[in-house]
Amino acid sequence: MTNQLPTLDVCFSPELLPLYDLRGKVAVVVDVLRATSSIVTALAQGVTHLVPFSELEACRAQTAAGYLTAAERDGRQAEGVDLGNSPFGYLDGVVPVRGRAVAITTTNGTRALHLSAAADEIVVGAFLNLGAVADHLRRLNKDVVVVCAGWKGKFCLEDTLFGGALAARLQADFDTTGSDATLAALDLWRAAAPDLAGYLLQSAHVRRLNSLEAHKDMEFCIRQDEYDLVPVFKNGRITA
Amino acid sequence: MTNQLPTLDVCFSPELLPLYDLRGKVAVVVDVLRATSSIVTALAQGVTHLVPFSELEACRAQTAAGYLTAAERDGRQAEGVDLGNSPFGYLDGVVPVRGRAVAITTTNGTRALHLSAAADEIVVGAFLNLGAVADHLRRLNKDVVVVCAGWKGKFCLEDTLFGGALAARLQADFDTTGSDATLAALDLWRAAAPDLAGYLLQSAHVRRLNSLEAHKDMEFCIRQDEYDLVPVFKNGRITA
Repeated sequence: MTNQLPTLDVCFSPELLPLYDLRGKVAVVVDVLRATSSIVTALAQGVTHLVPFSELEACRAQTAAGYLTAAERDGRQAEGVDLGNSPFGYLDGVVPVRGRAVAITTTNGTRALHLSAAADEIVVGAFLNLGAVADHLRRLNKDVVVVCAGWKGKFCLEDTLFGGALAARLQADFDTTGSDATLAALDLWRAAAPDLAGYLLQSAHVRRLNSLEAHKDMEFCIRQDEYDLVPVFKNGRITA
Repeated sequence: MTNQLPTLDVCFSPELLPLYDLRGKVAVVVDVLRATSSIVTALAQGVTHLVPFSELEACRAQTAAGYLTAAERDGRQAEGVDLGNSPFGYLDGVVPVRGRAVAITTTNGTRALHLSAAADEIVVGAFLNLGAVADHLRRLNKDVVVVCAGWKGKFCLEDTLFGGALAARLQADFDTTGSDATLAALDLWRAAAPDLAGYLLQSAHVRRLNSLEAHKDMEFCIRQDEYDLVPVFKNGRITA
């Protein structure tokens, strides 16, 4: 018997998750622009934990329980909450976040987290913690499915590129050849890596984001290995 | 007001079709390996029309109505039918096909055809009739969605590459920048085009196919512009 490597697959949209059997596997949920980048940043800035909500109202109601609230709909900060979906909300000091818990809801990211419930472990991935996630997956040594949050269920480039970047880092330790999605993600990553910002500027989602908020969000969210932490979603909470 | 170009979008899986509004648009259904390649070949060889069925039993029952029957499940010819899913079934002369009608069912392709019903027109695309489809779409001058049949609902490379090849041919006449899926398909096509056969040999689906049937199917199915015809699916029938 040969020593089989664990597999790494990429699921391009939460809508395709019913086709993937997550049982016994690790799900890496990614929403580069911007939910998972913000979650990683929040924990790096001393947020104690985050609780994702699907519904805006449920999220907003957590103010009464002492939570900071963070909410985005269609790329904009929602009404009546403390923070939007920009990682700079946790960095700029306008709202002090250290030692606080945060209730969050976002268009795509929260949905991807909740739909990954069947997995053995749900990890929050972003370029900001790419190396830390890769190291963690190597240690776990289980099959991995990267769950791209996408844009309203559709394929999006930035999450796919994260899948490709992760697969590239793990090629020696995981079988990355078993699915066409992983092969495509790797090839797109190879095309984009030399100038990731330039590459993403052509993407539909980034152009949408640019028209709503500063370009600097994207430039920050594609920094690799900025934070050495691995957020895990368990029992309704995301902790480092 | 500017003269807006029609859009070309790519849907990577029939499972994602609910996210696309096909009304008023042209759907180009593609299942390169091998349903749509076989349909194009069949019509080129004088088959009068094809009727796609979702269920194997319903397809098989058409023998009584004078149809040839073609069926594939999991890449193999089904029991009790005249033809499998190989385009060579229409070329090798073992079963005479000229002047006959064919009832077909395949794992992925038939499903994609039926799920595209909301479109104004449903065109059957393959590399074999790539140029003819491109010319036809230019004439129609309507928004286009390429519907990739995929592999059991999942993303597959060969159908995506057809989407990229079609977008590359239509870049002057269509807006191919509006969706990340189209941008990705174009980039994958650019990576694959110099050696399409070599590129596809790495794909999971092609490796699966190779283990079941001759490599020659794939090499035939990726020939471009072999046939100058545009099959259209209308009122339950596919005709040229």
